[in-house]
Amino acid sequence: MKEVEWLKKISTYLGKELSNEDCATIKFGNRYLIFTTDALVEGVHFSFSYYSYYDVGYKLGAVNLSDIAAGGGSPLWALLTLGTKTIDTQAFSFLEGLKHSLEMEGACLIGGDTVKSPVFFCSLTLIGETSYPLLRKGASPGDLIFVSRPLGESSAFLRLIKEKKLEQIPDNLKKAHLKPSPEIKLGKALSEFKIPSATIDISDGLVIDLFRICEEKEVGAILWEEKIPIGPWATLEDALFGGEDYALLFTVPKEKIARLKVIEKSLNRKLFCIGEIIQERNFYLQKDKTLKPLQIRGFDHFLD
Amino acid sequence: MKEVEWLKKISTYLGKELSNEDCATIKFGNRYLIFTTDALVEGVHFSFSYYSYYDVGYKLGAVNLSDIAAGGGSPLWALLTLGTKTIDTQAFSFLEGLKHSLEMEGACLIGGDTVKSPVFFCSLTLIGETSYPLLRKGASPGDLIFVSRPLGESSAFLRLIKEKKLEQIPDNLKKAHLKPSPEIKLGKALSEFKIPSATIDISDGLVIDLFRICEEKEVGAILWEEKIPIGPWATLEDALFGGEDYALLFTVPKEKIARLKVIEKSLNRKLFCIGEIIQERNFYLQKDKTLKPLQIRGFDHFLD
Repeated sequence: MKEVEWLKKISTYLGKELSNEDCATIKFGNRYLIFTTDALVEGVHFSFSYYSYYDVGYKLGAVNLSDIAAGGGSPLWALLTLGTKTIDTQAFSFLEGLKHSLEMEGACLIGGDTVKSPVFFCSLTLIGETSYPLLRKGASPGDLIFVSRPLGESSAFLRLIKEKKLEQIPDNLKKAHLKPSPEIKLGKALSEFKIPSATIDISDGLVIDLFRICEEKEVGAILWEEKIPIGPWATLEDALFGGEDYALLFTVPKEKIARLKVIEKSLNRKLFCIGEIIQERNFYLQKDKTLKPLQIRGFDHFLD
Repeated sequence: MKEVEWLKKISTYLGKELSNEDCATIKFGNRYLIFTTDALVEGVHFSFSYYSYYDVGYKLGAVNLSDIAAGGGSPLWALLTLGTKTIDTQAFSFLEGLKHSLEMEGACLIGGDTVKSPVFFCSLTLIGETSYPLLRKGASPGDLIFVSRPLGESSAFLRLIKEKKLEQIPDNLKKAHLKPSPEIKLGKALSEFKIPSATIDISDGLVIDLFRICEEKEVGAILWEEKIPIGPWATLEDALFGGEDYALLFTVPKEKIARLKVIEKSLNRKLFCIGEIIQERNFYLQKDKTLKPLQIRGFDHFLD
C-alpha cells in the first residue's frame, strides 16, 4: 500500500477537520493548541555512520519544530519516546541534542517513555499554541507561491554521502541535512499578519508538498524554474524532489503581498516567489515561455 | 544502567516539578492539562504469538488511559506513532483496537506519524484535563493504602502462556493481560473529591509502584498480606510483583476515609484497603502479628 492511501484511510479514524495537516489544531479556551508527532528510525531515516547521537536528537527536535512553524505556532511542550538497546552515554548525547534544538525555540521536554528496542528509534510529540493557525487548505488560483529559503542542500548531502566521507562534504550541506533550522520566527510572523492562504513545511520535497497544498483545494500550479532558489552544491532536481529542506512553502493572495514585504523587512530576510496557483489541476515547470509538465513524486518509505 | 538511574538523569532534562510522575501536569488557562506517553515494542512488551494486532492497539490505548486515570484526568486527545514493516490490513486492525479503547473513555486520535521500521512498535501520547491533578507525591505516615481491584491476573497470564495455548487460559486472565481496564471513572471521582494524598497506576508491580510513591516523601509502608485482593488463578507473588495490573494504587489520610466510602457507594464498587504508610523508610508484609521485610523489585527491561 502506498503511504498516501494509508493516510487517506487513517484520516477516517481522526477527529473531523484534522486530516492531512502537519499539525492537529484544537481550540482550547480562547487559544489554539497545535499538536504534531514525528519519528526517526535507525536505518530508515538516518544512519549512525554519518549521524552522531547528538545529531539525531537535534534533528528529531528540528523536524517537529518545523511542523509547528508550518502551523504558525509557538512551541511549548514536548514528550519523547526513545527506543534503544541500552541506556548509556550515547543516549545522553541524544538527549543533549534534542534539548538544544527545543530550547533554542523556547520549547521544553515535559515527559516521555524509554523502552527497550532492538532498533534505535525516537518519536517526539510537540505541542504549541497560536491565536491564528496556518493551514494547508486555502490556496486559490492567482495566489503566489513562496519558499522561505534556498532548497536542495539536504538532498545534495544524501547524494554526496554515498561517495564521500563526512569530512569531505561542504559544511552548508552537513548543516542543512543534520541540523536543519525550523522556521518558527517566520511561521509566527506569517500567522500574526494572517498572510498565507496555505502553508506547509517541505519535508518530502517541494513538488510533492506543493501538490499536497493544491490537492486540498483541487487546484494546480506553475513553478518558475529560474526563480527557484537552489542552495550551493545542490541541483534543480535536489530542490524540486529532494526533501528534508524544512523550509516553509506557502501561498499568498496578491492583495497581501505588500504586507509580506513588511515581514521581509522586519525579519531582515528575503523570501522567494517561485510560482503561481492555477485553476487547472496540473503542475508545470516554466522556463522562459515554455511549460513542461511536472511529475508528482517525492519520498515514500513504504514504496522502497 | 538501571532504568531508575536513567529516569533520575533524564529528570534533569525536564521542566521542574515534572519528574517522576505518570503524567506531566501543566496549568493552562484555568484548567490543568495532563500529558502521558507510553510505547509498546514487539518482542519486548508483547508477542504476536498471543496478541492480535487489534489487542496491541487496544492495549496501547489502555496503558496510556491508565496514566491519565492516575492523574485524575479526563482523556481528550491522542497522537500515535506507528513503526511497521508494511501498512496493510493488520495495521488497520491495530488502529481499530486503539480506536475502541480510546473512544470508550471519550478520547480521540488527532494525529501522528507512520514510519517504516524493521520491528513493530507503537507509541501514544495522550492528553487529558482535570481541575485537580492527582500526584505521586504526598503520602504521609498514617495514611491508609488502597488498591482499586484484585491484582495478579495479568502476571498469571504471562506465567501460564509459557506452558499453555491461548485457548486453554482462563478468560479473566486473558482479559486482564490483553485488554486491561483503565480506571478513568475512579480517577476522576478521586480527583473531584480530592481524596488521595498520592496516586499511581500499577504498571510495574504493586510493591515497586508503592515504593515509588513512598520515595517521593521518604516514607515506608506495611502491607497486610490477608487484605491484598488476589484475582482468580493469580498468586500472592503475582499480586505483589507481577505488574501490568493497571489498577489504581493510592494513599488516603484517615480523615478522608468517610468521603472515600461515599465514592465507593456512588460508583457501586468496593475498594481495597491493604496497608498503611509508616515513618520508617522500610517495607514490610504483615501476616497476623508478624512483619516480614519486603524486597523492592519489579520490572526493568534494561536489566534483562
